[in-house]
Amino acid sequence: MSTATPIPAYAAYEHFLISLPAPFVAHVEINRPRKLNAFSRPMWLEFRSVFTQLSADADVRTVVLSGAGDRAFTSGLDVQAAEQDGTLKGGDGADVARKAKGLRNHIEEFQECISAAEKCEKPVICVLHGISIGLAIDISCCADIRICASNTRFAVKEVDIGLAADIGTLARLPKIVGSTSWVKDVCLTARDFSAQEAVAVGFVSQVHESKDKALQAAVAMAAMMAEKSPVAVQGTKELLNYGREHNVADSLQYTKVWNAGALQGKDFMQAIMSGLKKTKPRFEKL
Amino acid sequence: MSTATPIPAYAAYEHFLISLPAPFVAHVEINRPRKLNAFSRPMWLEFRSVFTQLSADADVRTVVLSGAGDRAFTSGLDVQAAEQDGTLKGGDGADVARKAKGLRNHIEEFQECISAAEKCEKPVICVLHGISIGLAIDISCCADIRICASNTRFAVKEVDIGLAADIGTLARLPKIVGSTSWVKDVCLTARDFSAQEAVAVGFVSQVHESKDKALQAAVAMAAMMAEKSPVAVQGTKELLNYGREHNVADSLQYTKVWNAGALQGKDFMQAIMSGLKKTKPRFEKL
Amino acid sequence: MSTATPIPAYAAYEHFLISLPAPFVAHVEINRPRKLNAFSRPMWLEFRSVFTQLSADADVRTVVLSGAGDRAFTSGLDVQAAEQDGTLKGGDGADVARKAKGLRNHIEEFQECISAAEKCEKPVICVLHGISIGLAIDISCCADIRICASNTRFAVKEVDIGLAADIGTLARLPKIVGSTSWVKDVCLTARDFSAQEAVAVGFVSQVHESKDKALQAAVAMAAMMAEKSPVAVQGTKELLNYGREHNVADSLQYTKVWNAGALQGKDFMQAIMSGLKKTKPRFEKL
Amino acid sequence: MSTATPIPAYAAYEHFLISLPAPFVAHVEINRPRKLNAFSRPMWLEFRSVFTQLSADADVRTVVLSGAGDRAFTSGLDVQAAEQDGTLKGGDGADVARKAKGLRNHIEEFQECISAAEKCEKPVICVLHGISIGLAIDISCCADIRICASNTRFAVKEVDIGLAADIGTLARLPKIVGSTSWVKDVCLTARDFSAQEAVAVGFVSQVHESKDKALQAAVAMAAMMAEKSPVAVQGTKELLNYGREHNVADSLQYTKVWNAGALQGKDFMQAIMSGLKKTKPRFEKL
Amino acid sequence: MSTATPIPAYAAYEHFLISLPAPFVAHVEINRPRKLNAFSRPMWLEFRSVFTQLSADADVRTVVLSGAGDRAFTSGLDVQAAEQDGTLKGGDGADVARKAKGLRNHIEEFQECISAAEKCEKPVICVLHGISIGLAIDISCCADIRICASNTRFAVKEVDIGLAADIGTLARLPKIVGSTSWVKDVCLTARDFSAQEAVAVGFVSQVHESKDKALQAAVAMAAMMAEKSPVAVQGTKELLNYGREHNVADSLQYTKVWNAGALQGKDFMQAIMSGLKKTKPRFEKL
Amino acid sequence: MSTATPIPAYAAYEHFLISLPAPFVAHVEINRPRKLNAFSRPMWLEFRSVFTQLSADADVRTVVLSGAGDRAFTSGLDVQAAEQDGTLKGGDGADVARKAKGLRNHIEEFQECISAAEKCEKPVICVLHGISIGLAIDISCCADIRICASNTRFAVKEVDIGLAADIGTLARLPKIVGSTSWVKDVCLTARDFSAQEAVAVGFVSQVHESKDKALQAAVAMAAMMAEKSPVAVQGTKELLNYGREHNVADSLQYTKVWNAGALQGKDFMQAIMSGLKKTKPRFEKL
Repeated sequence: MSTATPIPAYAAYEHFLISLPAPFVAHVEINRPRKLNAFSRPMWLEFRSVFTQLSADADVRTVVLSGAGDRAFTSGLDVQAAEQDGTLKGGDGADVARKAKGLRNHIEEFQECISAAEKCEKPVICVLHGISIGLAIDISCCADIRICASNTRFAVKEVDIGLAADIGTLARLPKIVGSTSWVKDVCLTARDFSAQEAVAVGFVSQVHESKDKALQAAVAMAAMMAEKSPVAVQGTKELLNYGREHNVADSLQYTKVWNAGALQGKDFMQAIMSGLKKTKPRFEKL
Repeated sequence: MSTATPIPAYAAYEHFLISLPAPFVAHVEINRPRKLNAFSRPMWLEFRSVFTQLSADADVRTVVLSGAGDRAFTSGLDVQAAEQDGTLKGGDGADVARKAKGLRNHIEEFQECISAAEKCEKPVICVLHGISIGLAIDISCCADIRICASNTRFAVKEVDIGLAADIGTLARLPKIVGSTSWVKDVCLTARDFSAQEAVAVGFVSQVHESKDKALQAAVAMAAMMAEKSPVAVQGTKELLNYGREHNVADSLQYTKVWNAGALQGKDFMQAIMSGLKKTKPRFEKL
Repeated sequence: MSTATPIPAYAAYEHFLISLPAPFVAHVEINRPRKLNAFSRPMWLEFRSVFTQLSADADVRTVVLSGAGDRAFTSGLDVQAAEQDGTLKGGDGADVARKAKGLRNHIEEFQECISAAEKCEKPVICVLHGISIGLAIDISCCADIRICASNTRFAVKEVDIGLAADIGTLARLPKIVGSTSWVKDVCLTARDFSAQEAVAVGFVSQVHESKDKALQAAVAMAAMMAEKSPVAVQGTKELLNYGREHNVADSLQYTKVWNAGALQGKDFMQAIMSGLKKTKPRFEKL
Repeated sequence: MSTATPIPAYAAYEHFLISLPAPFVAHVEINRPRKLNAFSRPMWLEFRSVFTQLSADADVRTVVLSGAGDRAFTSGLDVQAAEQDGTLKGGDGADVARKAKGLRNHIEEFQECISAAEKCEKPVICVLHGISIGLAIDISCCADIRICASNTRFAVKEVDIGLAADIGTLARLPKIVGSTSWVKDVCLTARDFSAQEAVAVGFVSQVHESKDKALQAAVAMAAMMAEKSPVAVQGTKELLNYGREHNVADSLQYTKVWNAGALQGKDFMQAIMSGLKKTKPRFEKL
Repeated sequence: MSTATPIPAYAAYEHFLISLPAPFVAHVEINRPRKLNAFSRPMWLEFRSVFTQLSADADVRTVVLSGAGDRAFTSGLDVQAAEQDGTLKGGDGADVARKAKGLRNHIEEFQECISAAEKCEKPVICVLHGISIGLAIDISCCADIRICASNTRFAVKEVDIGLAADIGTLARLPKIVGSTSWVKDVCLTARDFSAQEAVAVGFVSQVHESKDKALQAAVAMAAMMAEKSPVAVQGTKELLNYGREHNVADSLQYTKVWNAGALQGKDFMQAIMSGLKKTKPRFEKL
Repeated sequence: MSTATPIPAYAAYEHFLISLPAPFVAHVEINRPRKLNAFSRPMWLEFRSVFTQLSADADVRTVVLSGAGDRAFTSGLDVQAAEQDGTLKGGDGADVARKAKGLRNHIEEFQECISAAEKCEKPVICVLHGISIGLAIDISCCADIRICASNTRFAVKEVDIGLAADIGTLARLPKIVGSTSWVKDVCLTARDFSAQEAVAVGFVSQVHESKDKALQAAVAMAAMMAEKSPVAVQGTKELLNYGREHNVADSLQYTKVWNAGALQGKDFMQAIMSGLKKTKPRFEKL
């Protein structure tokens, strides 16, 4: 379990620990280290709540996400728990069409919970370490930036438990690394891949020798972003995510309308003035 | 010419040899080595038939594609044959608009034949070696994974014969490697690029010292996939291809509906049980 | 200031120098070296005119773009000039909604001017060197191929002046390099990155030891393209750009219709004949 | 206020009355007749809850939506309440960029609440009557079928209060009636239009002489749907909504995957058997 | 059974009769009147062949489609035959995931066969008469123009046999009539609708007092189109279908490329010259 | 020729007369009545200039467009002029591929000129009268609202001159009327249709007994819009046009960002206050 001091506003969460390692930087830890941070349904529901709250919290400008403990970011779905709560079956005794509805509803809820990290209006930096398989990939694909420890063991593990990954990996991974040949290799074979391979293909941006070093690098990067205009930073995240999903013409149009509002804020002039005067600007909360 | 024993159900093909190097793994060889495996119209029509049959064949779970012989995967279009059968002209004596219709129909048929490798519901691993230019790139872009021999000579050769590549390279290549600057370089200059360059940009996943080694690696990878649940593997291919063409929201929705059926199959529980019992699961044909 | 001899038809431009370093190759230099080639509004209006003229000029087949002088490709927006001409404010005294309209119109005009390099029907090779920040990235993302000098200092600098980049970087950068993790890192932190980093992630295709060497390489590549069929080269640029914005099915359809016209031109047969006769083809202007 | 008996599971709602006028048919009444059923923020939050609950409720197969009382379906936004709760201002004292964020969040929440009627998996039949302006159009555009009383006074009223409608009318109205010339006329002039005009352009399907008659017709239609296979009915709603947003190829593909699950349910065989035996089928809950 | 004389090239079809009621006009009759022209699998396979052949046949410029006999255009799927050939089950004994694959393949084949009428490059005018339910709607939605007899009994019948229509009605109907409220009414209730209702909502363009009169009108319209330039007519069909599926910018771009070839044909000048000389132009086959 | 007094700022146009029939309402007349207002290239270039100027002119809030004279709105392309200026040929002596480029450029310029009416930020009401064929339909499809005189003779005439309409009719008409069966009928037959038919299918919103009456109605409608908040009116036009081209989710998102700026303007509060005080609001220019 983590030893960081939780931010009071987030103290009630059971499965996540949220602390403040630097001004305006929230550190979210998946906090079930005895179970390798495996996810049960209450956890992914809480995951959504955490990121929804962070998105609206003007005291937070960037988020760092890691697992608690040394062994795993997360080992993925807690299969045992999933069997017990019945969500994988779509309803006992029902016919195929009715089970299909149950399963669709289950998958949709699960997808929406994990997508909360992507929808969070603040940049999210994911620190992967140790066992990082299955759902670990789905989650990290929702982050903006991925950094990892050299001991990370990655795998898109789903075909090994007889299913196609359905919480986002197959939708997002091809859009966040360049080589489709590599994406299909790891998704179709479910083989492990290393930190070195992850950085070579561009899945992660940095590898550090330990989880601690990786965390420090992530917090430093987060702190750097947190000093900048939150209007500029959050706008940049929004426009990059929009750009991934739309053609250039649509993106330029959306950008234009977005900045027609944003440029009227004070941050723009404040940043320019600070630049000219060589002072450090301070921006209002957002 | 290849010396492998053809699978009887595929023995009638003239230009392709289909053998079974491992359980559930089909090896397709382009079999016109004296002509550097260049393609004439009967060959691309047959190419479509081969992959359509493989897609529906429950005894096949993965496909490896290579050229026969040592010299070439394929040198591309058999230009001489193309001139003789007249398809490049769109009909003699016709006016421009009528020739245009002839050419559209010709290109569409050719595109559809080559796209059969992409539409095949089983993963296709393409082994490139020797001369691999022009149509070789169109074909390999339809495969899921690309592996090559170190002697491979790659080129998007079409501008050198006065045309923009129209059988798929320009549509698919920008979606399967990350660097557009590189894609435009090789497509606009028609220059050769090497195996080393191909792996560095992510066009291929592995380089091996010889065609044989590359083939062995491909068959090993194919065999590994063939042992897994075909419901999971084929679903993963489908969802990754869907994800390439749709935004994340659409992909998540399609995934949800897809898995609402797939998860009710036996493979999911079987794979989980085997995982718990540390036994090797055996899956029904698909 | 550049010492090249301008092409007469382009001699009237104030802020750009256009010369002819090789047959059919135009070299465009951003020509305000004393101000680090920073852009004021008259410059981006002229930038559009230059590229619109090049696109229609049958004596030009490829374009190389660089900055004049040793210090910078461009340091981006001339902030002082922008403040003076008032475009950043969207109209004095107006209410928020009216200023928003002014800003939208300003951004749209600016975007369209820079996009002229992308719309230019001839390939554009961008040579980056020295200071290459802010607008330098927007501009270079519109080029087809990027080459740089080893001394290049790159940065997506906009968040440091309090805004989200709105002239195209956020729309195009994720589509031209593979690693989204890297894209978000450089866009959200505004940190500098080096030539080595740029080539490693695929943003540029080549690094050379000096601006001169980089320019020579670019001109050589441009000259190589200029010898080929302009029907083939310009068609290839068009189809690759189309492919980036559309799914594969749409791309194949558009390709088919495009080539149904292009294949009826003389270049195709001429190139094939030259290939058979081992002679060098000469193509008509386009 | 309505005199119908509420379904117990929905009795706690303050602003909506939900009764059961026929088996499996829920009747939702907007229940603030003294204020012409105008919407305040608590009401649209509750609107979302009501439709989310109905969507998941296996005892409900179709929904009829109307206003309580004789005077209005709804007169739209309760402007006075909106001013008091401050949501229209995006935060006091904030600068333009920060207010813009506040307003975006406010509009998004409002849009999502109203869209709940569209996302409801059961068909929704909207009965319009009396004053039906502004938000009334946004809401009714989310229903599947619109029926009205002859006294209905319709208007897309937003331009008269100085804004472009932002809760869905401008996004959906052009997709649900055929004549764009008519859509722009009513949206740009904010003029009233009558029940007769509404049925002539296809905005509503039926006009009845009174609210009571319109409600009876709606309940009868809802009851008719409620007797059919819920697998078939809910699938049909889903596929029609999907079809509105996608091209034909995508729609056919999604349909295929959807029905591959649905056809394995019992309803299909049961319905066919009942057809052959001329008996009335009874379907399990969904 | 029809008494028309079949065109020899189409005489071998078993379930369709193809005659030539006017120059360049083919009349296709669904020819199984004793079974109300209900469709079994061999029929839809043949339907595809017929329309593929017509599309390529330069002696045909427009197609009229009707049912043979007085009683029905078609009563839809031959349910009995479908049960016997097992296609509705997706394979006996298989598990849910494997049956799902069988069903997907079955639906896809069926969809592709019916879509052949839409893909036919010549305009298709559908004459509906008598019983026209279920598959009749799927088929007629693939035609370009719909005309009907006053006795036509229309219904989107699928929910009454426990399924969502999956052969195209739900994908195409919302795109070919304006009122979504009407579309959802008829699709969700499966109720009959009359010729008068069909013409009022724009589903059909004309109602005639009898099947014979409707056929005469269709043949007259088809003959009128057949006298015009086939380059212009087939181009118009292509561009209208493209326009339905793409945004305006994409459509204008595709149109531009299409006509850059088409305008170089002889028909354009020939038509203009004939217009000036008041003579009747004669166009070459296409 | 028109007898209205031109607005001085628009007096220099040769082919268009722009007057001010009501406050903030511009009336644009196509002013070549002796030639039935047929369009030559200088006219469509000027058409673009007129609408670009109107779009930016804060003294104009709505535009009415008609033909000058009694006989025609416009008879379309001036074919004789087109032949003389050579634009229809794509360059003499060139090969097919080079002519294709010439034609693409010609069509693109023509399309962009006519699209200026659609891009104009102010609502455009088109009054059709007398001969209104060919280009008349392309132009009127770019207007927001269509009104006509009872003597209007409409036709999508292009197939009669041997080509598929390429200036926008085939891209826009299917999106602005509901019945595709009707659209294909008129586009494929090139037949005339009447004012009565046009209003019945929703192509026009009103028919008046004479051109004068139609113009009066158009000016009255335009004046009504011109009294409202221009922020609201122009926003509504923008969002409706956006909605036509995007799915509902994209539209709602764009709407949200748009209104986050627009709602901070003064018009919103001013309009609400005027509503409460029953006074007539006056809005600043835009």
